[in-house]
Amino acid sequence: MLSNSLPIDAALRTRAQRVIPGGMYGHLNVARLPAGYPQFFARAEGATLWDVDGNAYVDFMCAYGPMVLGYGNREVEAAAAAQRALGDVMTGPSERLVELAERLVGLIAHADWALFQRNGTDATTLCVSIARAASGRRKLLVARGAYHGSAPWCTPHPNGTTAEDRVHLVPYDYNDIASLAAAAQSVDGDVAGVLVSAFRHDYGKDQELPTEAFANAARALCDRTGAALILDDVRAGFRLDLRGSWETVGVRPDLAAYSKAIANGYTLAAVTGGDKFRDAAASVFMTGSFWCGAASMAAALKTLEILERDRCIATMVRLGQRFRDGLAEQARTHGQVLRQTGPVQMPQVLFANDPDVEKGRLFAAEALRGGAWIHPQHNMFLSAAHTEADIDRALQATDAAMAVVAKHFGRD
Amino acid sequence: MLSNSLPIDAALRTRAQRVIPGGMYGHLNVARLPAGYPQFFARAEGATLWDVDGNAYVDFMCAYGPMVLGYGNREVEAAAAAQRALGDVMTGPSERLVELAERLVGLIAHADWALFQRNGTDATTLCVSIARAASGRRKLLVARGAYHGSAPWCTPHPNGTTAEDRVHLVPYDYNDIASLAAAAQSVDGDVAGVLVSAFRHDYGKDQELPTEAFANAARALCDRTGAALILDDVRAGFRLDLRGSWETVGVRPDLAAYSKAIANGYTLAAVTGGDKFRDAAASVFMTGSFWCGAASMAAALKTLEILERDRCIATMVRLGQRFRDGLAEQARTHGQVLRQTGPVQMPQVLFANDPDVEKGRLFAAEALRGGAWIHPQHNMFLSAAHTEADIDRALQATDAAMAVVAKHFGRD
Repeated sequence: MLSNSLPIDAALRTRAQRVIPGGMYGHLNVARLPAGYPQFFARAEGATLWDVDGNAYVDFMCAYGPMVLGYGNREVEAAAAAQRALGDVMTGPSERLVELAERLVGLIAHADWALFQRNGTDATTLCVSIARAASGRRKLLVARGAYHGSAPWCTPHPNGTTAEDRVHLVPYDYNDIASLAAAAQSVDGDVAGVLVSAFRHDYGKDQELPTEAFANAARALCDRTGAALILDDVRAGFRLDLRGSWETVGVRPDLAAYSKAIANGYTLAAVTGGDKFRDAAASVFMTGSFWCGAASMAAALKTLEILERDRCIATMVRLGQRFRDGLAEQARTHGQVLRQTGPVQMPQVLFANDPDVEKGRLFAAEALRGGAWIHPQHNMFLSAAHTEADIDRALQATDAAMAVVAKHFGRD
Repeated sequence: MLSNSLPIDAALRTRAQRVIPGGMYGHLNVARLPAGYPQFFARAEGATLWDVDGNAYVDFMCAYGPMVLGYGNREVEAAAAAQRALGDVMTGPSERLVELAERLVGLIAHADWALFQRNGTDATTLCVSIARAASGRRKLLVARGAYHGSAPWCTPHPNGTTAEDRVHLVPYDYNDIASLAAAAQSVDGDVAGVLVSAFRHDYGKDQELPTEAFANAARALCDRTGAALILDDVRAGFRLDLRGSWETVGVRPDLAAYSKAIANGYTLAAVTGGDKFRDAAASVFMTGSFWCGAASMAAALKTLEILERDRCIATMVRLGQRFRDGLAEQARTHGQVLRQTGPVQMPQVLFANDPDVEKGRLFAAEALRGGAWIHPQHNMFLSAAHTEADIDRALQATDAAMAVVAKHFGRD
């Protein structure tokens, strides 16, 4: 059981409040999490995080996705360091750029080419621009509630944006073929692209894998209209299927956006595409000061090598299943009804009959006190560095947490 | 004199052509540079680049700005590596986040707070969103020809963008007070922000420092209307004045965007702002998977320490002046008229009477063959790692290049 008091974290928050608006920003801001979540971390290794007050946690967020082989993976660190000793961000790219593009083309089923950026949002934005350049059209069909980044056109919190930033977005409902068709029909002749997440992983919602029927309908719509089928694989990429996440349903996109896990925490994003969109991709100008940095590319090459060599997805599935099974058993024991959805290696754990997430928040806060960093509303992530011992240690924490939930809210 | 033949580079380009649209992308694409420029680099150290065929160049681009203390600066590398051994991209930020925000607030004259991103474009985009959130207005006054990034709202090559992406931009001419006033008047009551570069550094144009009158007029316009004065210091930041580039004209912006040189090549960007815009900044959601990576922040802390401790700007000015003086002398000797503009540490070197840049391109290509990587149209960058010997070696190359220009085009 960890101490509930985080004096060093509290002191840092006080300092942060002075020099950072709101004290913290973005998705790493713990302001909306239950009390007790540390804001600042001192160290990370394998699947373990240490907060600045010295408490250790089994990390079920993996930096919200980037960590896939473990913090500080020695092989990845060595590959990046070796490249860095030669050169990283230079006046031109290194050979790593070509090697990594070749690697993605060899690995990802739909890919004939690749381009590299620094943020997942860079990648999704570039996909949209390529789709528009290819078709000369404007409209983008986007699933309601889906997260595709934080640029003005896609941020879920549109403070500071203008109406025009999203005027060409047309909503549909994920996995709902009729709503997709209706969205397309409503802007017939002007559809540049259909944007799909690898699966439905909206904040606070049950996750949903794509149905084959939906995936095929999206593909057929794009084939019929010449729109680009754009797969946002930023969050799920390299955790479901190394060939691209929609290989699981046998449908290939025209363009795909990757980031997060591609380089085990090194800053990198990528767009992959098919030959049909090659000229359009070459016609779009998007760039950044650091986009050809060679160290991140060396890290990505090694990360992809290890993911394939060590069959890491199978490891994540096995550990994720162990976690899910353990939670399900605990729920039965403590008389709770859990909604565990999505791929086991990217688990979403919600309580039934919990409209205000009160049970979920109490459960997460108690699990945290027991040494497991879990999120009450965002999907979580397994890594290949999690061990059975990590899962079992976390399950001890969740068992105690579930008992507290049962005591406080009663049995379901 | 280097070999003109780059067989390894050529082989890499052939491979790249297959897996990267157009063979290369963005500002590091050498397709529009004269023949002979290597596309791929093997190594970089201090102010020297080595291409994949083993040729060495004194680098006057500094990775288009990020390199400011020399490639592979030992102190910066050690600081980043030490942080990386603890943790980089984690499930939350590290103490480095607070330290770096405090450092920027202490260093940058107008700054009461800071936020961190990964691309210069992230920083300029966030400034615009904050200005809009603060005012509830939409219009952004932007100088004609200025580069503020490559997102759809600002990319200089709008393939793949829509009309709506730029519908709220209102152009004015840099350093032209009347045009700025007219732009503001044309959208009176709806001006969210005035975006200014640190100085006029447009591609292929003579550079222009801001006049005090213009800077004061921009400040007064914002004070009168409540619009945000946004300084795009991405390219010039930390090379003109560590307190912010408009300290040179005594005018403080409301918001400023930094990137490039802030961490000597590590991937980082920052927005700084004054208290007046703190609440608006807290209200805007923008984030990225890697935005709180601690290694880049440790690199930035060390970079800023060295820039201040070693008075690096003075070094860059001294070396830049040596380069400019040498070129001016060579131009006189060879009967050429050069237009050398802007700060000496960010030199723009153009030939007079050279509308198609034929002299400039021949000069650059010949200087390159002599071992100096210079750009015929983009502003260049000095670093604190350039030595007098580097400058003198480069000047030998430019002297020979100038002789070739004189021979080919005659004396001016």
